[in-house]
Amino acid sequence: MSAGGKTVVLLACFGVRAEPWLAALSKAAPDFELRVWPDAGDKDEIDYVVVWAQPNGFLRQFPSLRAVLCIGAGVDRILEDTDLPKVPIARMRDEGLTQGMVEFVLARVLHYHRLMPAYEAQQRQGVWRQLAAPLARDRAVGVLGLGQLGAACAASLAANGFKVRGWSRTRKDLPGVQSFEGPLEAFLAPCEVVVCLLPLTPATRGVLNAATLSQLSGASLINVGRGAHLVEDDLIPALDAGHLANATLDVFATEPLVAGHPFWTDPRITVIPHASALTPPGTAGPTIVANIRRHLAGQDLLDLVDRAAGY
Amino acid sequence: MSAGGKTVVLLACFGVRAEPWLAALSKAAPDFELRVWPDAGDKDEIDYVVVWAQPNGFLRQFPSLRAVLCIGAGVDRILEDTDLPKVPIARMRDEGLTQGMVEFVLARVLHYHRLMPAYEAQQRQGVWRQLAAPLARDRAVGVLGLGQLGAACAASLAANGFKVRGWSRTRKDLPGVQSFEGPLEAFLAPCEVVVCLLPLTPATRGVLNAATLSQLSGASLINVGRGAHLVEDDLIPALDAGHLANATLDVFATEPLVAGHPFWTDPRITVIPHASALTPPGTAGPTIVANIRRHLAGQDLLDLVDRAAGY
Ligand SMILES: NC(=O)c1ccc[n+]([C@@H]2O[C@H](COP(=O)([O-])OP(=O)(O)OC[C@H]3O[C@@H](n4cnc5c(N)ncnc54)[C@H](OP(=O)(O)O)[C@@H]3O)[C@@H](O)[C@H]2O)c1
Ligand SMILES: NC(=O)c1ccc[n+]([C@@H]2O[C@H](COP(=O)([O-])OP(=O)(O)OC[C@H]3O[C@@H](n4cnc5c(N)ncnc54)[C@H](OP(=O)(O)O)[C@@H]3O)[C@@H](O)[C@H]2O)c1
Repeated sequence: MSAGGKTVVLLACFGVRAEPWLAALSKAAPDFELRVWPDAGDKDEIDYVVVWAQPNGFLRQFPSLRAVLCIGAGVDRILEDTDLPKVPIARMRDEGLTQGMVEFVLARVLHYHRLMPAYEAQQRQGVWRQLAAPLARDRAVGVLGLGQLGAACAASLAANGFKVRGWSRTRKDLPGVQSFEGPLEAFLAPCEVVVCLLPLTPATRGVLNAATLSQLSGASLINVGRGAHLVEDDLIPALDAGHLANATLDVFATEPLVAGHPFWTDPRITVIPHASALTPPGTAGPTIVANIRRHLAGQDLLDLVDRAAGY
Repeated sequence: MSAGGKTVVLLACFGVRAEPWLAALSKAAPDFELRVWPDAGDKDEIDYVVVWAQPNGFLRQFPSLRAVLCIGAGVDRILEDTDLPKVPIARMRDEGLTQGMVEFVLARVLHYHRLMPAYEAQQRQGVWRQLAAPLARDRAVGVLGLGQLGAACAASLAANGFKVRGWSRTRKDLPGVQSFEGPLEAFLAPCEVVVCLLPLTPATRGVLNAATLSQLSGASLINVGRGAHLVEDDLIPALDAGHLANATLDVFATEPLVAGHPFWTDPRITVIPHASALTPPGTAGPTIVANIRRHLAGQDLLDLVDRAAGY
């Protein structure tokens, strides 16, 4: 705590513009002392760090650190740190972030459901031909991960008529969603569209690979989880083999996706620059501040990360 | 009525495959005598005609005709006939047809809402750049026509979070939909996406023209009504002027869209071969049969067309 008795919060979001976060945090916490990395001042005074994608060991340098608050829903980049202090870590939960993901996923599921890639191909060839399209109620969509984002997407897909299957570590009871746990292969087989909204953990790294994708026939993949959920080298072979018909990738093993990568030019792949759902500082800033106030009042942080589980 | 005392129904759907309709009608009405044009038999015996896009004067040749049942929701092609007998005409109402339209419209609205054309353009150029996308609640979508299809689309858009404005001849009270009547110009001005689901009548022909489209700035147009709602020659100028950013056309003044038409190759225009919502014979056949049975029992047909209004 700084000399003046104020709570000191350091904003250290790597690869993210600091200004909107600083503005939102300042507005919600005029009583805190906000510092922006690299102007950390006396490192001993830092109580909380609001973080994204820190370098390894970064958080070790603040001896009085009480907790870490992540500006994203996925904390894999935080937990990757092999020298992480044993303080509580909170992930992000924000209604606008969730709603943005719901809208993106629904947009892409409907695009594939309504055979838009086939119609676009016909248009390029000047072909006028009606294609039989089932209704959503005859279309099986699988959602991997039924957490805050996956459950919201599954609910929206179900509300819009799709037959929704959801896969999670523990079975759920969600209206309109058939919930599964256990081997991914059996879950995937009937899916015509697959949406990945898993957190990246040792257990989920590479779950979308040649073996699991081979369960599908002509399906569409929408990966909005993390790039490393997909074994990227297995994607084009799965498309060539017809297990997948097309894919929308919002996340990649290396971001930005490297120039010249074959995904950029494959007509079956839609590349989105990790933009399916951005955390809006305007609402997420106040959420972080409220969570810090809880902690200052002696309560546990909300949306605590289970470090053993990795999410 | 045929010699055997059976109700005689003639299937005369021009430009549409007869088989699925014949199968559905036969199954629902084993007690009717079904004939398929041009095998009409004794024309004097025809009680009802199930029709689509008949040639001018076609319906005149059946002197005992009691009513006409259209397999589509839009009856403009029926009413175009300048020599139409004065019998009641029923249009189509089918839950599957409506649901298909709802899914198509939502797919295209979300596609534009989530800036997919811009991301596709970036991908073609190998550009990785996140674009600011508002949430649906900050996006105004205008629906022209709030009948069975327009009202269902408006309800679905509202349920998915959009700010929905609806335009119809008479004002409506629909949850989540701001309802308007009156000049189209004032209605259009704030719209970021415009969905046309009007019937084609003398009053709606050419409503989407240079003057009305000039109210828009950078909007997306989705025409799923009829081709003649749009003055087609005004579309590319409206795109060039920035009033429209892009358009999805499912309907055209002449269908199939003629080879070499500039719409085929304009990257801002998506051409769909009148496939947004097809009437499914499996459910619509029984609906037609039930409507005929009503009429035989002395009741008015359901979904009667108002010939003066033109829909
Ligand atoms: N593309 C983007 O812009 C973007 C934006 C935000 C988030 N994301 C990604 O989305 C992920 C999910 O976010 P969230 O907030 O929904 O996470 P969350 O609330 O933590 O939910 C995670 C879900 O995944 C399930 N899961 C975890 N490990 C599993 C395993 N080994 N097998 C099967 N299911 C497993 C969990 O099961 P239980 O319910 O049984 O625990 C839970 O249902 C984030 O971690 C992040 O990677 C991407
Ligand atoms: N693309 C396709 O595959 C496809 C498939 C099916 C149908 N359609 C088209 O969709 C159209 C609409 O179908 P629907 O079943 O929804 O029709 P509907 O139930 O008859 O509804 C028509 C709506 O348009 C409004 N309207 C009519 N004239 C108007 C005017 N001059 N100004 C403002 N509003 C006006 C009506 O207003 P009021 O409510 O005040 O009467 C009503 O809300 C059909 O006529 C057809 O052309 C296309």
